[in-house]
Amino acid sequence: MKDIVMTEERQMANALRALAMDAVEKAKSGHPGMPMGMADVATVLFNRFMTLDPQAPKWPDRDRFVLSAGHGSMLLYAIHHLLGYADMDIEQLKNFRQLGARTAGHPEYGHADGIEMTTGPLGQGIATAVGMALAERMKNARYGDDIVDHYTYVIAGDGCLMEGISHEAIDFAGHLKLGRLIVLWDDNGITIDGDTTISTSTDQGARFAASGWHVQKCDGHDPDEIATAIEAARKDPRPSMIACRTVIGFGAPNKQGGHDVHGAPLGAEEIAAARACLGWEHAPFEIPAELYAAWGRVAARGAAARAEWEARLAACPARADFNKAEADDTSALPAAINAWKAKLSTEKPKVATRKASEMALGVVNATLPFSVGGSADLTGSNLTRSKGMKSITPGDYAGDYIHYGIREHEMGAAMNGIALHGGLRPYGGTFMAFADYCRPAIRLSALMGVPVTYVMTHDSIGLGEDGPTHQPVEHLASLRAIPNLTVIRPADAVETAEAWEIAMTSKATPTLLVLSRQNLPTVRTEHTAENLTARGAYLLRDPEDRQVTLIATGSEVEIALAAADQLAAEGIRAAVVSAPSFELFAAQPCDYARKVLGTAPRVGCEAALRQGWDLFLGPEDAFVGMTGFGASAPAPQLYKHFNITPEAIVSEVKNLI
Amino acid sequence: MKDIVMTEERQMANALRALAMDAVEKAKSGHPGMPMGMADVATVLFNRFMTLDPQAPKWPDRDRFVLSAGHGSMLLYAIHHLLGYADMDIEQLKNFRQLGARTAGHPEYGHADGIEMTTGPLGQGIATAVGMALAERMKNARYGDDIVDHYTYVIAGDGCLMEGISHEAIDFAGHLKLGRLIVLWDDNGITIDGDTTISTSTDQGARFAASGWHVQKCDGHDPDEIATAIEAARKDPRPSMIACRTVIGFGAPNKQGGHDVHGAPLGAEEIAAARACLGWEHAPFEIPAELYAAWGRVAARGAAARAEWEARLAACPARADFNKAEADDTSALPAAINAWKAKLSTEKPKVATRKASEMALGVVNATLPFSVGGSADLTGSNLTRSKGMKSITPGDYAGDYIHYGIREHEMGAAMNGIALHGGLRPYGGTFMAFADYCRPAIRLSALMGVPVTYVMTHDSIGLGEDGPTHQPVEHLASLRAIPNLTVIRPADAVETAEAWEIAMTSKATPTLLVLSRQNLPTVRTEHTAENLTARGAYLLRDPEDRQVTLIATGSEVEIALAAADQLAAEGIRAAVVSAPSFELFAAQPCDYARKVLGTAPRVGCEAALRQGWDLFLGPEDAFVGMTGFGASAPAPQLYKHFNITPEAIVSEVKNLI
Repeated sequence: MKDIVMTEERQMANALRALAMDAVEKAKSGHPGMPMGMADVATVLFNRFMTLDPQAPKWPDRDRFVLSAGHGSMLLYAIHHLLGYADMDIEQLKNFRQLGARTAGHPEYGHADGIEMTTGPLGQGIATAVGMALAERMKNARYGDDIVDHYTYVIAGDGCLMEGISHEAIDFAGHLKLGRLIVLWDDNGITIDGDTTISTSTDQGARFAASGWHVQKCDGHDPDEIATAIEAARKDPRPSMIACRTVIGFGAPNKQGGHDVHGAPLGAEEIAAARACLGWEHAPFEIPAELYAAWGRVAARGAAARAEWEARLAACPARADFNKAEADDTSALPAAINAWKAKLSTEKPKVATRKASEMALGVVNATLPFSVGGSADLTGSNLTRSKGMKSITPGDYAGDYIHYGIREHEMGAAMNGIALHGGLRPYGGTFMAFADYCRPAIRLSALMGVPVTYVMTHDSIGLGEDGPTHQPVEHLASLRAIPNLTVIRPADAVETAEAWEIAMTSKATPTLLVLSRQNLPTVRTEHTAENLTARGAYLLRDPEDRQVTLIATGSEVEIALAAADQLAAEGIRAAVVSAPSFELFAAQPCDYARKVLGTAPRVGCEAALRQGWDLFLGPEDAFVGMTGFGASAPAPQLYKHFNITPEAIVSEVKNLI
Repeated sequence: MKDIVMTEERQMANALRALAMDAVEKAKSGHPGMPMGMADVATVLFNRFMTLDPQAPKWPDRDRFVLSAGHGSMLLYAIHHLLGYADMDIEQLKNFRQLGARTAGHPEYGHADGIEMTTGPLGQGIATAVGMALAERMKNARYGDDIVDHYTYVIAGDGCLMEGISHEAIDFAGHLKLGRLIVLWDDNGITIDGDTTISTSTDQGARFAASGWHVQKCDGHDPDEIATAIEAARKDPRPSMIACRTVIGFGAPNKQGGHDVHGAPLGAEEIAAARACLGWEHAPFEIPAELYAAWGRVAARGAAARAEWEARLAACPARADFNKAEADDTSALPAAINAWKAKLSTEKPKVATRKASEMALGVVNATLPFSVGGSADLTGSNLTRSKGMKSITPGDYAGDYIHYGIREHEMGAAMNGIALHGGLRPYGGTFMAFADYCRPAIRLSALMGVPVTYVMTHDSIGLGEDGPTHQPVEHLASLRAIPNLTVIRPADAVETAEAWEIAMTSKATPTLLVLSRQNLPTVRTEHTAENLTARGAYLLRDPEDRQVTLIATGSEVEIALAAADQLAAEGIRAAVVSAPSFELFAAQPCDYARKVLGTAPRVGCEAALRQGWDLFLGPEDAFVGMTGFGASAPAPQLYKHFNITPEAIVSEVKNLI
């Protein structure tokens, strides 16, 4: 490391260090090492390059900054405070990690302005930023350089680069030549267990280069080296990774460079030593006016840039379109879906719900020009590509269909990034069994409240011969367990259309569509203008004075209806409830729920495990479904083998009544 | 590609091609492209290199072969048939993908001899094989070259190398210098959506080299090139990747090289054309005797090698130890744990269950010399390392503690591989919220019935300030949903010791331990020789004529006991049930369950979502727990904020009775 020259920029960085170590100390928990180590890099980035306006935190053309190493949250909070974000006053920093503060242990999207995403689960930040960078290029292709022309910066740690998702992110971004994505790797050589050499030997530079990235190194404590590298990265047409060699906990003289400084307060003695070492003479949480002024100049530069942008937008012919997309204006969709439903109720197609989904997407994508589709290399199976969609290819972003490759995890994260960027509404497909592969990204969609749509096809033993690895049995339960995720398993083409309406008009909740491989008849044979799927469950057949209520979802609704027919032939009156979404039903008024469920004994049917069915079933009620993993055989044989049949339902009904 | 010369080895490969295309055709579903493309590579590998004995499929020193691209299962079944595996007769091949056949759509561990693991979920094969190769080196360090000295081969496809888990596997294997791991990459340039160039541009060779691998290329249809590469790979001290350039569906003249040949039957016409193209004149499922004989020589070579090995083992002084480990002899553990429990009941420590786990591991690891620990870079947090454990380092495998790095997914897969290899019993830790990151591996543990142990600490909002990204709320439900996985959430040090006994004596079920960050008192204050945790739930406090039953798990048992005390002070008699494992309780006889649960109203308490609690609670009962994501604050404040307190339980009780 070169000799330290005390400049204003250096002091701007020391302000970050001081706020980080003091806030962690006051909270008695947290991670001082990363903010202190990366303070110089972050300061140079913001001071010389970042364009954003704290007065307009959602300005669409702002540069994006993602702190992938989310445990270093104090770095972000300190920057936001110094930049003058109105909701990040010094009291917030003093209340770091306390109940109700905006300054959570890890940055939480929605808690404070300017937090571009929730980070903490390692690797998610870099993977999500890839989606932001892709969205930027796609919107640039639509609206031009005058309106969309910004960078996406990421600070990533060793953990981010060890996680598997980083490979998917790097491979995908390199392939798509996302040249405006710049990753600053905090190359400090330390993980929680000790030196990184305990567990990894990868040459990260060579690894990124193998996937088509522009790679540089710099001394992460030398402002000019940092700036030179960022400048070169901005000019290079490839995505860039800059390995910033840093000392973790820089400035804490007795602890820096070791893993003890990673995740615990420094202690009063070491903080005093750090103050001396850094030449920082101010009390905790006190920042001299000239440093506020220095950081304020960064904000002022951004405000000026935004004013120029506003003028350009005002002069842009496509302004109305742009604003509609930014506002996520989905108001035209319900009418379009309603017209489509009317057609379906007449035509009564017998198709797999994945096929019905493709048909519905024809309507959705024609109605919402900012809808963006894709699949994790299963386009022809997921049927996620409606007619007329154009593939995004490396260097040509003027399309609306993304080939995510065999990268379910990156697909989920990239969709989060596209939605967070704004102005585009992503959906993407894979086999439902592989929801497990992208589960951490699904959880973040739900935690952040980002309305992306997961299209999960081949949803049960109904996929047949591929066998138990590919057959979801516990996935419905495990996905329904995620808070703020709407899981919808439609029974036919009508419910599928309704499900798409729910998904694409949702504003703060992600949706996961669960679709069949096998053909299913139209069970909603009479058109209703009301979106009944939005009720979560509703009566499909409602005989007077019912003796039993059959409740089923998706492909098993057909089976429940057949059972009801058999029962009717024997003089037993069975109501049939289609229950496409447990979450939506749980949100209904009690009166409605009572009306649907009635007081007669109940039999549930779903080609999955029972867990979660206590929403509908009491201890005395019966369930026809799976009790363990599936098997490899043609689907009709599997339904018989696992006894998920009309006859099984009839038998349970007779036991009950 | 060079000119094809028709040799016996070429015909051995064509036998694989014919069996694959004919079996897929008969099944009317499956994947002919990969078996036909990789037939030459697989034939050379088995014909010239693989050492195994179909008469002794579990011979410990056999070479391991993992078909990571599991959709090409017919390649494996055809090889096993031709090698003479007794349970893989021609009828099995004719019943490919049919109910009850051993020949499932993807290879299923336990369905037939010689299937080293279940594959199909992409990337799992290569990641699990890393564990096998590591186990080989660890056992070699313990028993020497005479007893353990074999290779691990993998066939991986493009999908395997795009999945994120492949990065974790490659990084980890390269770091540990697992030179006996050889990956044969089916470099056919095709994925389901089309050419691989649609979604990836990574230079795979450079990528592997960046992580310290030996990298070669060969023409995957030139036997001598293939053999030369494998020979070099075996000699090189680094793990090896051989990019085998192949034509997918090789031999099907009109379809080969395209993505249509990947996952659908060729059709009668194309099969006839392929027969002509390959010079294969035999009827479907007919193999000429000379080819059976040729494949039989491979088996005979292996049988001879095994006989020599048996002689070496008989002369080995450490034979008894070796056999005990191979037999997974855990018979000494119950007595050791019982003695430890007696001590705990006297000392009544107040420690976090993660700390209690570390203490129990002292007993476990002292009793079972073949136990192998590790953590995904959270050793000091998970407390997975008991005293005296020695780290595995690159080139030195004479230890029993593995630094998995920040690679939860690889940790799960590697543990599967270590357990599948045999002779070692792995456990590994991470934060419970990151169970999501390794969920596909956990599912495979359960599906295969491999008794690995997942140590998941920081199991609730009790972790405090790190906030919602790090706080499991839905994870208990989602993990309990996985069939054949025993989830145990102990309440104190005694239950933790019992949980470890269950985990480390389980033979065909993986165990997942759910452990607290925060300290908990000993609630099992009286010693019982019986392992009460093995009952799943049991009465901790049992007043006569109870008026209410409180049921809790883990850290909430303390809260339930405090509530019972408060109720007792008001003259209300509350029984308290500790319920560490739902799965184990569900397996108890009805009589026992009735006795534990009683007939009084019930209140459940768990710092997690209610889903799954219908095992204990009816619609009229109450639940005190979480209803959504957590928050960032000190843990005691969070318990109050989310109303998981003795007072909340008392209030629910008063509502009920």
